[in-house]
Amino acid sequence: MNPVDIIIKKRDGNELSQEEIQFFINGFVAGSIADYQVAAWAMAIYFRGMSDAETTALTLAMAASGSQFDLHDSVAPGVLIVDKHSSGGVGDKTTLAVTPIVAACGLPVGKMSGRGLSFTGGTIDKLESIPGWSPDLSEKQFRKQLREVGLVVAGQTVDLAPADKTLYALRDVTGTVPSLPLIASSIMSKKLAAGADAIVLDVKCGHGAFMETLEDARTLSRLMVAIGTLAGRKVVALITQMDQPLGRAIGHSLEVQEAIATLHGNGPDDFQELVETVAAEMLLLGSGKEEQEGEGVSGLKIAQSHADAREIVLGAIHSGAAFAKFKEFVAAQGGDIGYLDQPQRLTAAPIQITVPALRSGYVSHIDAREIGLAVVDMGGGRQKKGDPIDHRVGVIMRGKVGKAIREGEPLCTIHAANRESADIASERIQKAFQFSDEAVEALPILLDRIAG
Amino acid sequence: MNPVDIIIKKRDGNELSQEEIQFFINGFVAGSIADYQVAAWAMAIYFRGMSDAETTALTLAMAASGSQFDLHDSVAPGVLIVDKHSSGGVGDKTTLAVTPIVAACGLPVGKMSGRGLSFTGGTIDKLESIPGWSPDLSEKQFRKQLREVGLVVAGQTVDLAPADKTLYALRDVTGTVPSLPLIASSIMSKKLAAGADAIVLDVKCGHGAFMETLEDARTLSRLMVAIGTLAGRKVVALITQMDQPLGRAIGHSLEVQEAIATLHGNGPDDFQELVETVAAEMLLLGSGKEEQEGEGVSGLKIAQSHADAREIVLGAIHSGAAFAKFKEFVAAQGGDIGYLDQPQRLTAAPIQITVPALRSGYVSHIDAREIGLAVVDMGGGRQKKGDPIDHRVGVIMRGKVGKAIREGEPLCTIHAANRESADIASERIQKAFQFSDEAVEALPILLDRIAG
Repeated sequence: MNPVDIIIKKRDGNELSQEEIQFFINGFVAGSIADYQVAAWAMAIYFRGMSDAETTALTLAMAASGSQFDLHDSVAPGVLIVDKHSSGGVGDKTTLAVTPIVAACGLPVGKMSGRGLSFTGGTIDKLESIPGWSPDLSEKQFRKQLREVGLVVAGQTVDLAPADKTLYALRDVTGTVPSLPLIASSIMSKKLAAGADAIVLDVKCGHGAFMETLEDARTLSRLMVAIGTLAGRKVVALITQMDQPLGRAIGHSLEVQEAIATLHGNGPDDFQELVETVAAEMLLLGSGKEEQEGEGVSGLKIAQSHADAREIVLGAIHSGAAFAKFKEFVAAQGGDIGYLDQPQRLTAAPIQITVPALRSGYVSHIDAREIGLAVVDMGGGRQKKGDPIDHRVGVIMRGKVGKAIREGEPLCTIHAANRESADIASERIQKAFQFSDEAVEALPILLDRIAG
Repeated sequence: MNPVDIIIKKRDGNELSQEEIQFFINGFVAGSIADYQVAAWAMAIYFRGMSDAETTALTLAMAASGSQFDLHDSVAPGVLIVDKHSSGGVGDKTTLAVTPIVAACGLPVGKMSGRGLSFTGGTIDKLESIPGWSPDLSEKQFRKQLREVGLVVAGQTVDLAPADKTLYALRDVTGTVPSLPLIASSIMSKKLAAGADAIVLDVKCGHGAFMETLEDARTLSRLMVAIGTLAGRKVVALITQMDQPLGRAIGHSLEVQEAIATLHGNGPDDFQELVETVAAEMLLLGSGKEEQEGEGVSGLKIAQSHADAREIVLGAIHSGAAFAKFKEFVAAQGGDIGYLDQPQRLTAAPIQITVPALRSGYVSHIDAREIGLAVVDMGGGRQKKGDPIDHRVGVIMRGKVGKAIREGEPLCTIHAANRESADIASERIQKAFQFSDEAVEALPILLDRIAG
């Protein structure tokens, strides 16, 4: 096989074989296929697309390029490994609330997460606003905590899908990021390498997400479900609202506070619903082939239907088990759980100002991306990899789409490091709101569900 | 400016500005824009194409990337520099016959030529079959010979359009060769850097050429004429037949023999006509703005029309002036002109066999590419850059398209280094001929003419 022939085959719109894709990825990793050849190939894929079979072959080749995690020996025998993934959005603290809930229901979660870039935040960054908490675990510590606590959220403990990392870095500088097969294989390669038997994908859709249209989100979701199914995993994709920020909090410590409220059942409507839905989907997938009711292997609460799963999830929230699991997890990774019982202590931004509505009306649109970028500009995000983050800064939304607001009433509260950055953010956020004289319906949180 | 933005702009089908293209090429040459970015950009151009303005900007940026030749001070004042270029085909020895003719008419020609690759031969390789002749001239020698002899054909004496060389090498390994704007700018950048005021382009069209269809050849021709015009040069493109080999000779020393016969007016019909047409076009372009009849600056014979130009060309052939110029040129570059007076001495392949027709009929098709490849396989061409060449081997066609041939009559004569390679070539060439029971018309040599 010859790399140029493979580029030309794709360029001309022909389907590549599994062997050709494997040869290409292996050659790229080994250095025998040059990055300029991979760049030309990626651009040809941008224009020609890939079949489900090609995308799956690419995903598997990248998943096989590094360590392949197998967590089955770190959980009770027979327990399925269920993972979740979010495509990222503004105010997305879902992992923080979902994983303690499902762990409290007896489904262990051992998850590697990332940091934030551009207008979206990262789970690891958010958890780091809890004093003492650390994402740095050895593989041994990771497995021990999974066994003992049933919940781990760590940084990149093992080198998952290094081919994906290298390919993504190349795509980033060659204008080949927005290709659905390349996006889908990038996400799924890491999930497959992380060893999940089943995966709930939270595909954000709207102006505050990478997929801006429902059509694109559905295409990406179908593709990822197809890849998972072809790779022998169970995958459910939930397409969820990102045409406004998720929940009310945007900013690291503010989002941790909101996640804690949600673990108590007191989250904002949209976020509470999303968390319960994702948790129920994970539980249902984790219940797997078990037929019996009640408790399954290792205390797992078996769900036989969505209604069942939702009930179990609500039980874990209202019994306090979910919050207790969160504290146990934070403590295991060195965090000071005193802050979790008094979460208001987490926020200590010196300046807090209110952004007033300039007119009366119904909130008709909130530009989530603009609000995300306003928080980044206040120091609550990164312009480039490795930048420090101010965990204190952020925004608490007071009105969301559909809410009737009178002139002068607060749209949101800004938490800032100084008055100047607060004023800049205030002006920007005011422009991110649109109003209507007619009543506007609240936006649904769940837009679609696609299962294999 | 940012290279990624420029890639994305082209990927999304937008027109790049002259500044953006110049920034990209300059950055590529300087190493500040990586080859993987250029590869992705070239693939985006493959899919999106380029406007005439973009292609011209690319051509000029590449032409400006190295030395820019100016030959005006090496010819008499007021004389225009007229170049020719062939896109390459099987049996294409046009430069060997055309340039002595126009030089004999008083139009000086100082030309840099290349070597052959794949199924087509190179002018430099062909001339090297004359013992002693060398393409290696310093710039000073080049200018001196142009002044004194009026005809130079040399290798790459100065580094013309190095950006084109680097870009071509990258395109070759990234599946981005067959893009018309990239092909056109590659050809024209070298011609513009070589300092021509006017250019006759011989665009080969057919199965034995890089442009296989008349439509592609016309598109490429129009594009190159547009580039030349936008760059302030006069350009004429002739689209000429390459659905069968040009003339009768394929192979280095055999082609030199045929060029000599043509300089005497005794070439095969198609080749003789092509040579006279190209020479007349060059002369007409070289006559430029001169209004007077007769001799112009420095003895240039001024043509006021095609008919005029053709008559002057025929005069140079039949007076012996063209052949005399060829000898003078060969001698100036160290060649033994004794071989030119007895050209049969040039051929010394030990084996000569005849390939008989296996059936009677009219020759309806000759696969020029197959015949070119058969000669390469006999040692008369390169598989890769730097391979040695056997100048002796080749093929003399006896029948061309339209000819009625009886079973057993010769299709061609093979000149080979040994019997085994001759037999392999014989079998291959026999398959390259197709026959019809119905009469078939001879193929026209000139398919179209496109001028600015």
